[in-house]
Amino acid sequence: MARLRDAPKAVLFDVFGTLVDWRGSVIAGLSAFGAARGISADWAEIADSWRRAYRPSMDRVRRGLVPWTILDDLHRDALMNIARRHEIGPLDDADCEHLVRLWHRLAPWPDVAEGLGRLKSVAIIGPLSNGHLALQVSLAKRNLFPWDVTFGADLFRHYKPDAEVYLGACDLLGLAPDQVMLAAAHNDDLAAAASFGLATAFISRPAEHGPGTGDRAKPAEAWDIVTDRVGGIAEAFGV
Amino acid sequence: MARLRDAPKAVLFDVFGTLVDWRGSVIAGLSAFGAARGISADWAEIADSWRRAYRPSMDRVRRGLVPWTILDDLHRDALMNIARRHEIGPLDDADCEHLVRLWHRLAPWPDVAEGLGRLKSVAIIGPLSNGHLALQVSLAKRNLFPWDVTFGADLFRHYKPDAEVYLGACDLLGLAPDQVMLAAAHNDDLAAAASFGLATAFISRPAEHGPGTGDRAKPAEAWDIVTDRVGGIAEAFGV
Repeated sequence: MARLRDAPKAVLFDVFGTLVDWRGSVIAGLSAFGAARGISADWAEIADSWRRAYRPSMDRVRRGLVPWTILDDLHRDALMNIARRHEIGPLDDADCEHLVRLWHRLAPWPDVAEGLGRLKSVAIIGPLSNGHLALQVSLAKRNLFPWDVTFGADLFRHYKPDAEVYLGACDLLGLAPDQVMLAAAHNDDLAAAASFGLATAFISRPAEHGPGTGDRAKPAEAWDIVTDRVGGIAEAFGV
Repeated sequence: MARLRDAPKAVLFDVFGTLVDWRGSVIAGLSAFGAARGISADWAEIADSWRRAYRPSMDRVRRGLVPWTILDDLHRDALMNIARRHEIGPLDDADCEHLVRLWHRLAPWPDVAEGLGRLKSVAIIGPLSNGHLALQVSLAKRNLFPWDVTFGADLFRHYKPDAEVYLGACDLLGLAPDQVMLAAAHNDDLAAAASFGLATAFISRPAEHGPGTGDRAKPAEAWDIVTDRVGGIAEAFGV
């Protein structure tokens, strides 16, 4: 692992996939919903479809084709389409709300709480996710993430990888980009952060996309830190 | 004390005077600076003058006479004037920065950490201050405030009592104003919050402005909760 001499002033974290197991949690939530309603379906495929809608729906916002829209609303629209396609509907408003809120209750990877606790002793820590602030608050509350600062994409009205998110967070912290590190399980997120001058930590999460997808969890570049646990970042800074 | 049946979803806190003893901390910091430099002055009067410049300087921003300016910069401008008037200068840039940063290291009232810890078990808690986000992060880090969400005036580019701050925070939390409570030691802040539909908690801080000023620490209206400790709010919700 690369070893940096000094900890950055702040370490900001991607959240979906990096800190929380969105896939396992969403499959579990959908399955429980199906069981309660007597609906059987390929819930893993539905969870994956739902996630596949994520990037294109944000890209429509990023390209200005639709006005600023928070992730709950993007999730709701995608869910309606998927429910139709998989014939698991009709879903009423309460069903939709329940399922959209599954994304507020995602479970963490097992190393996260311990790693964040250690890192907090040497750096400001916070989420830098495409989730909105209310969603980050829900996840932090459920999972006891001990954030020093809470960012949400709605503070910037932009989605990653837009510069406004990375540089907006640095600016609000009163820090230069090279005083801030992004930690993420995704090479494209880190590439954007690096292009704007932030330090980078890659956290490998081979289980993010399910069995047989571990190849996507490999570092594509020589990031400042490469690890498989949040605690690995703390160790690189000697804590 | 009024007893509310249900806790609001979120309790947001004014910070200067409500959670931290700005006056005692700033006097101590100025005195230490003076001792190190061999400057003697009425540091209590200087701290009070500095604070008196606070509201008028924010009001110039609120009326649009100057563009959006964060509190560090308002503090720096006011300090330069005061230093000239009290002949404690000239202050170089490093001195100014050191003194402006005193506002990032204010000490809490003794009940705060314990009270916030209890309240956090039943509500989302966060600061809603005229300080900017970086300043709130500094204060939380120094004082171990266990915030679930961190707001700063710069997220809204408005200062209290502008509606944008109170309603902007509710909106980012995805909550209606009546699901959110403002806790503050200042009647005017609570009056604004109440006018926008938020619930209110008055925390009496008779020592905020120094000896003989306790009259300013009395509730001017029948706020939803009146107490003299953060823990009093937790108790009103049965925790």
